[in-house]
Amino acid sequence: MTQANFTPGPSQLYFTVKDHVRRAFRDGIPSLSHRSPTFEAIFESTTVGLRELLGIPDDFSIVFVSSATEIWERSIQNLVEESSLHFVNGAFSYRYFEVAQQLMKKPMKVEVADGKGFSSNEADGNPELIALTQNETSTGVSLPLSFVHSFRQRYPQSLIAVDAVSSLPYPAFDFNTIDSLFFSVQKGFGLPAGLGVWIVNDRCIAKSEKLLTSRVNIGSYHTLPSLISFAKKKQTPETPNVLGLYLLSKVVEDFLHKGITAIRKETEYRAALLYHWLDTAQIAKPFVTEAAFRSNTVVVMECKSAMDKIIPALNARGLFPGDGYGKARSTQLRFANFPAHSKEQYELLVDTLNDIQVKS
Amino acid sequence: MTQANFTPGPSQLYFTVKDHVRRAFRDGIPSLSHRSPTFEAIFESTTVGLRELLGIPDDFSIVFVSSATEIWERSIQNLVEESSLHFVNGAFSYRYFEVAQQLMKKPMKVEVADGKGFSSNEADGNPELIALTQNETSTGVSLPLSFVHSFRQRYPQSLIAVDAVSSLPYPAFDFNTIDSLFFSVQKGFGLPAGLGVWIVNDRCIAKSEKLLTSRVNIGSYHTLPSLISFAKKKQTPETPNVLGLYLLSKVVEDFLHKGITAIRKETEYRAALLYHWLDTAQIAKPFVTEAAFRSNTVVVMECKSAMDKIIPALNARGLFPGDGYGKARSTQLRFANFPAHSKEQYELLVDTLNDIQVKS
Repeated sequence: MTQANFTPGPSQLYFTVKDHVRRAFRDGIPSLSHRSPTFEAIFESTTVGLRELLGIPDDFSIVFVSSATEIWERSIQNLVEESSLHFVNGAFSYRYFEVAQQLMKKPMKVEVADGKGFSSNEADGNPELIALTQNETSTGVSLPLSFVHSFRQRYPQSLIAVDAVSSLPYPAFDFNTIDSLFFSVQKGFGLPAGLGVWIVNDRCIAKSEKLLTSRVNIGSYHTLPSLISFAKKKQTPETPNVLGLYLLSKVVEDFLHKGITAIRKETEYRAALLYHWLDTAQIAKPFVTEAAFRSNTVVVMECKSAMDKIIPALNARGLFPGDGYGKARSTQLRFANFPAHSKEQYELLVDTLNDIQVKS
Repeated sequence: MTQANFTPGPSQLYFTVKDHVRRAFRDGIPSLSHRSPTFEAIFESTTVGLRELLGIPDDFSIVFVSSATEIWERSIQNLVEESSLHFVNGAFSYRYFEVAQQLMKKPMKVEVADGKGFSSNEADGNPELIALTQNETSTGVSLPLSFVHSFRQRYPQSLIAVDAVSSLPYPAFDFNTIDSLFFSVQKGFGLPAGLGVWIVNDRCIAKSEKLLTSRVNIGSYHTLPSLISFAKKKQTPETPNVLGLYLLSKVVEDFLHKGITAIRKETEYRAALLYHWLDTAQIAKPFVTEAAFRSNTVVVMECKSAMDKIIPALNARGLFPGDGYGKARSTQLRFANFPAHSKEQYELLVDTLNDIQVKS
C-alpha cells in the first residue's frame, strides 16, 4: 500500500500520466516517426505550453535532450571556451563543476558547506559562464530568486546558467537576468525519466556559434546550433524519446489547466506544513538551518537518533521518504514536494511524524 | 485501420509491449529510483538476456545510453585519438563519418554509391577504428557477415565498430572479429524510442582509458570508463530511461522464449516473400541490384513511375510503407522486416502489391 512516494527523483508520477500513456498507445505515439507532422505538432504543443507555464520570452528557445546530466555536459561544451564559475554547496552543484573539469575547461568555484546558502555573489574575474544550482537536491538548499537574479548586474558579460532540476515548475524566474535554464521531467513534472529540457536565449546560441567558428569542439548531434536548427523545424537531431515528449506535452497542459499560481501556492502550503512541524519537533529538525535557504520542493530532515523508528513507522502508513544523499543516508531523510504530491499526503506525513514523536 | 507499419524506425511495436507497459505502471517502474535494488535487477536481467540472445561473450560489456546517434558520438570520442576509417554507402554511414569530423578527428572514408556494397576491405594505413554500418537503413544495403568478419585479420590493430541499428537481433555476429556493436531499441526490438545499447569489449575499454590518461577529451558522464564503472554496479551514470530499459528486458525475454533461430528463419522467410515478388515485378524492382548486398531487415523498393498508384492502394489495405530516404522519397519505398512484423502482414503486402500490378 503506497500512499505517497517522497523520493526526490524519479518521484511520484503526476496523477494523469497513466491515462496519457493509455491514450498514447491507442494513438500510435510510441511508433510515431520523429519526422512526421504529428511529431512536429507534439513538439510545438510542448514548447508553446512550457512558454506559457513558465513565462518564457520569445528570445529563448527550448530544446530537448535525454537528461539534465546531459545538459551539464552540453552547456559547458557549448557555452564555455576556457572557464566557468560554479557556486557549489552540495553533490549536484559539485558535479556540474566536475563536468567542466572533465571537459578540459578550467572551472573555478565558490564553495560553502552542505546545507548552507551563499552570503554574496562576489567572485574574482569575469567568468564566461556562471553555474547556479538553484535547488540542491542533495541537501534541500534553495538559492533565493533574488540571489539568482543578482548575477546579471554584477557580471553583465557572463552567461548565467541555472540548474532548476528539482524545483521547476515552482520558481518564477526573471528571464531578463538568466541565459540558460534546465530541468529533467522525472521530478517536478511527475513523469517517467528519460528527457531533459534546456531553455536558452540568443546569447547562448551566439556563444556556441562563436565557439564552433573558432574550431572549439562543441560536440556533434547535440551541439546547440544543431539542436536549434532542428527545433526550428519542430524536430530533434536524433530519434528522441517520443513517448516522453508526448507525456510532457500532456502534463504541461494539465498544469496550465490547474494554473501555475495554484501550483505555486499549494507547493508553499505543503512545504510550510512540514517545516512548521520540523521547527518544533523533538525527534527531528530541518537540515537547512537558515529559513531563507530552505527549499520548498525538497525538504531535508535531520533525524537525530530516531531514524530506526521513523522509517518503519512511515512505511507502515504507506509513506516512502527519500534517503539522505550520500553520507547523509544514515541521518537524513528527503521529502520531495512536487505538483504530484497532494495536501492530503503531506497532512498524513505530518500526522504520522507527530504520532511517532508522541510515542517515543 | 492499421494492419502494418513498415516504417524502418520508429517501427511497429512488438505485440507484447502494451502489456509490459501496463505491468510497469502497476509495479511502479516509471517512478523507480535508478539507485534501487529493483533497478539493478532490471539492468541485470537486460544484460543477461541480451548476452544469451545475441551470444555476447564474457569479455564484452553492455552499456545503455539514449540513442544510437549518441553512440556514434561516444564511440568516436572514446575510441579514436586521431583518425577513423569509415565504409560509406548511404546517409547513415556518412553521418557516422561526419560525427568524427565534428569531433575534430581526421576520419577517412571508402565510399561507394547508394545501393552498392563494397568489393574489398582494402584501404590505406592502419586506422585506429574502422566503422562499418552493417545495415544501411537509408538504402537497404546489408554488408554480408563474411565481409564484416574479414576486417580483424586485415587490420589486427584496429578496433572494429559495427552499427547494426536496423538489423539486430537478426545478424549472428562472430564477436571474435569485432570490438564494438550497437543498436537502438525502436527498430528490431519493437520498442518505443529513447534507448541505445552499446556492446564493447575490453580492447575498447583499454583504449578509452588510454585516451583519458593522455588527457584526450572523452566526455564527462558518458565516457566509456564512467559507463563501465556504473555498469559493474548494474547502474547508469545518470537517471536513465528506466521504463525503456524495463521494456527492453521484457522484450528480450519474449525473444528468448520464441528463440533466436525462429526469429532469424522467419525474418528470412518474410524477406524472401517480398524479394521474390520484386524480382519479377513490372511496377517495381529491388533498389539493391546485387542479391548478396540485399538487407533482410530493410527492403528498399524502387517504384519506377507507379508511386502514385502504390501508396494509396497499400494504405487502403492498412499497410503503411516507410518513405524512401532523403531525395529517394519520390521514387522509393522502404519496408522494415523486424520481429514485430508477421508472416501474415508480409503475405498481405505481397498480395496487395500483386493486385496493384494486375490492375495497372
